[in-house]
Amino acid sequence: MKKIALIGSTGSIGRQTLEVITSLGEQYRVVVLAAGKNDQLIAEQAKRFRPEMVSLFDNEAAERLKKSPLPENIAITSGLEGQIAAAEWPEAELVVMAQVGFSGFQPLIAALKAGKTIALANKESLVVGGDLLERLNLLDRKRIIPVDSEHSAIWQAIGTAKQQEISKVYLTASGGPFFGMPGEQLERVTPEQALKHPNWSMGPKITIDSATMMNKGLEVIEARWLFDLELSQINVVVHRQSIVHSMVEYIDGTVMAQLGSPDMRAPIQHALTFPARKKGLIKAYNPFGSLTFEEPDRKNFPCLDLAYRASEAGGTMPAVLNAANEVAVKYFLKEKIKFTEIPVVIDAVMADHLPVRDYSLEDAVKADLQAREKAELVAGQLIGRVR
Amino acid sequence: MKKIALIGSTGSIGRQTLEVITSLGEQYRVVVLAAGKNDQLIAEQAKRFRPEMVSLFDNEAAERLKKSPLPENIAITSGLEGQIAAAEWPEAELVVMAQVGFSGFQPLIAALKAGKTIALANKESLVVGGDLLERLNLLDRKRIIPVDSEHSAIWQAIGTAKQQEISKVYLTASGGPFFGMPGEQLERVTPEQALKHPNWSMGPKITIDSATMMNKGLEVIEARWLFDLELSQINVVVHRQSIVHSMVEYIDGTVMAQLGSPDMRAPIQHALTFPARKKGLIKAYNPFGSLTFEEPDRKNFPCLDLAYRASEAGGTMPAVLNAANEVAVKYFLKEKIKFTEIPVVIDAVMADHLPVRDYSLEDAVKADLQAREKAELVAGQLIGRVR
Repeated sequence: MKKIALIGSTGSIGRQTLEVITSLGEQYRVVVLAAGKNDQLIAEQAKRFRPEMVSLFDNEAAERLKKSPLPENIAITSGLEGQIAAAEWPEAELVVMAQVGFSGFQPLIAALKAGKTIALANKESLVVGGDLLERLNLLDRKRIIPVDSEHSAIWQAIGTAKQQEISKVYLTASGGPFFGMPGEQLERVTPEQALKHPNWSMGPKITIDSATMMNKGLEVIEARWLFDLELSQINVVVHRQSIVHSMVEYIDGTVMAQLGSPDMRAPIQHALTFPARKKGLIKAYNPFGSLTFEEPDRKNFPCLDLAYRASEAGGTMPAVLNAANEVAVKYFLKEKIKFTEIPVVIDAVMADHLPVRDYSLEDAVKADLQAREKAELVAGQLIGRVR
Repeated sequence: MKKIALIGSTGSIGRQTLEVITSLGEQYRVVVLAAGKNDQLIAEQAKRFRPEMVSLFDNEAAERLKKSPLPENIAITSGLEGQIAAAEWPEAELVVMAQVGFSGFQPLIAALKAGKTIALANKESLVVGGDLLERLNLLDRKRIIPVDSEHSAIWQAIGTAKQQEISKVYLTASGGPFFGMPGEQLERVTPEQALKHPNWSMGPKITIDSATMMNKGLEVIEARWLFDLELSQINVVVHRQSIVHSMVEYIDGTVMAQLGSPDMRAPIQHALTFPARKKGLIKAYNPFGSLTFEEPDRKNFPCLDLAYRASEAGGTMPAVLNAANEVAVKYFLKEKIKFTEIPVVIDAVMADHLPVRDYSLEDAVKADLQAREKAELVAGQLIGRVR
C-alpha cells in the first residue's frame, strides 16, 4: 500500500488527485490532507478519506475546522508549521505538493529532508527556489516526480536515459486562446475570454498564465531545475492540440514524445503509481488526426522571453518575475489593466531589480515582497493613466 | 570495445551499418563480414574493416573471393555453414543480422544459442519462424534488438516497462507512393512508380512491399513475436510523413512515441549502441510542421489484411504468405503481373495451404517451397490470361 500526504487538497490538482486515488483502489491511501483555507471542503474530504491528519494554512479556517464534526482520531494542525508537519508526516511515503505559491517551498524542503518521494505540482518552489535547493544540495531529482503534464512527459521520455545523452527538450504549448490573434486585438481581450482555455481545464491564475504564455515561461524555468538542463537546451514549440505533452531529443537524433488526451489526471496518476503503470480513469488514445507544431509568437506574447530573461539573470530575478506576474494577473482579472499590460508590469518590475546571487530563503521572500510592491505601483500608474 | 559480426554486409542495411560503425569510432569493431554473393564488395569491405573472418553464402562467389587479394589472416568460409560460423563467431558479442530471406533463420538460431546479442534486420526469421523460435524457447526478447525503424521505435518506447503494462502498439506506415490512389488507377501502376518511395531509401523488394503495404503486414507479424503481443494489440496507422516511427499505448492511457527523420542509420545505430546513446550521423530533429495519422485503406491494399489473416491462421501460413509474396513481387518487377495482382496471387496460394501447427524447420522450408511453386503457377495463369 502506498501512503500519501496531499498538500493543496482543495484546489484543482488536489481534487483531481483524490479522484485518481479513489479510482486506483485500496493500494493507495491518503494519510494527510492539507490545504489553504477551505475548511468546508477539507472537512468533506476528511470524512471520505479518513486521513490521520488534516492541516489548514489559514489559522482562522483551522479554528473553524476544529469545531466541525470530523471522524475520530484525526489530528488538526495549522499555519506553516502544519504544512511542514504534513510534508514530513512519518507515515507518508509520497507527498503530493499541489498547493499554489511560494509558500510551498518550506514544506518541499521538509519533505525532501524527510526522504519522501514528491509528486510536485507546485510551480513556484522551483521557479523561485530551484537555485537555492540546488545549493542546499536538496535537489534529489530521482525523488521529485513532476505532475505538470509537460514535465511529466519529459520525465517519462527520459526514463532511464543518462543525463549526458539528452540533447534538448521541447516543451509543447497550446498557445492558449489567443494564439494567432493580431497585436491590436490582443489589447482588448477580456478576462472572460482569457479564462476559456481551448484544451485544459485549470484554475484561473494558471489559465491566464497560459493565455500570456507566462505559464510556459515558468515551465521553462521549472524544467531547468527538474532535469538539470541549460536554458539553451529548453525549447518551446506551439502545439495547438495539446496531445503531445512534450518531447526529449537525444544526442543520437532520436526524439521520444509522450502523448495522450489533455487530462491532468494522467500525469497525476503517473506520479502516484510511478514506476508502475495502472489502469485508471484516462480514456484510450485516439491516434487519428493531425498534430501541428509551430514557432511561438514571441512578439505578441513577450512573457515567454521575460521568463527566459529572468532565469538567465538568475539569483532572485525569477522570484521577481513570478511575484510581478501574480500582481499583474490579479489586476487584469479585475479588469483594471489590459491583457497586453501584464508583460509591461513585469518588465518594469524586473528592470527595477538587481538580482541577489546565492540568495537565501529570506532574500527570496524579500525580493518577492519588494516586487509585489513595485508591481502594485506600476499597475497603479497604468490604471491612473488616461486611456 | 564492442565487437560486431555483420551478416548481410553488402545489402542496403549492411552498407549503412558499416557507415554507422565508421562514424562511431574506435569503440566499435567489425570482426566478421558475411554476405550472399557479392564477392567484389565484400572484398573491399574486408580491406577497409579488417575482420577476422569473411563469409559468402554462395560457394562460387566464395571461391572467387579466395582468389582475390585480401589482408592477411582473414578466414574465408562459405555456404550455410559459413553463415552459421559467422553468427556464432566467438569474438563477436553483437551479431547484426541484415541478410534477406528465411536463410537467415538458422544463423539466428546459432547466434541465440551462442548467447549473442542480436541486432535483427532480417524480417523473415520472425515472420516465418517466430512461432518455432518460441516453441524452442529461444526467443530471449532482451537480446533481440530490432533494426526496423518501427520496431526500434516500439523497443525504445517500451524501455523498461513491464509487459502487462502495454495496452497496444501503433505501427506507423507511410502508406507508400500510392496511398489515396483510386483502385482503377492502382491497376496500371508500373514498377518504376512503385520503386519511388516517398520517404525511405530501401532495397527494391522492400520498397514494393511498402507500396502494397505487405511490408507493414510482415511488420505486424514481426511485432507479435518481438514484443510478445496478441494480434489484436497491434494496430496500423498511416502516417505519411514517416516522422513518428511507431507508438506504444500503456494501460494508463499514456502513449510513448519515437520520432526522428526517416533515416535507417538511426535505428541501426540504436541497435549498435544500446543501451547507450551516442552522437552519430543523424541530423537534429526539426520539430516544426504537421503530422497526420489516418486509417489504412484495407480495400485497395489488401496485403495488410492478408498478413493479419496468415498470422491468425498461424503454423506454416506466414511462411506461405511470405513465399507467395516474394514470387508475386518478382513477377510484378518483371512487369508480368499487375500491381493489384500481387495480393491475388498471395490469396490464391494461401487458400491452397493447410497450415501445419507446431511446425518444424523442415515443415517451414517445405511450406515455403510449395508456396513458391503454387505462386509460380498462379502467376503463370495470370500472365497467360488475355488482357
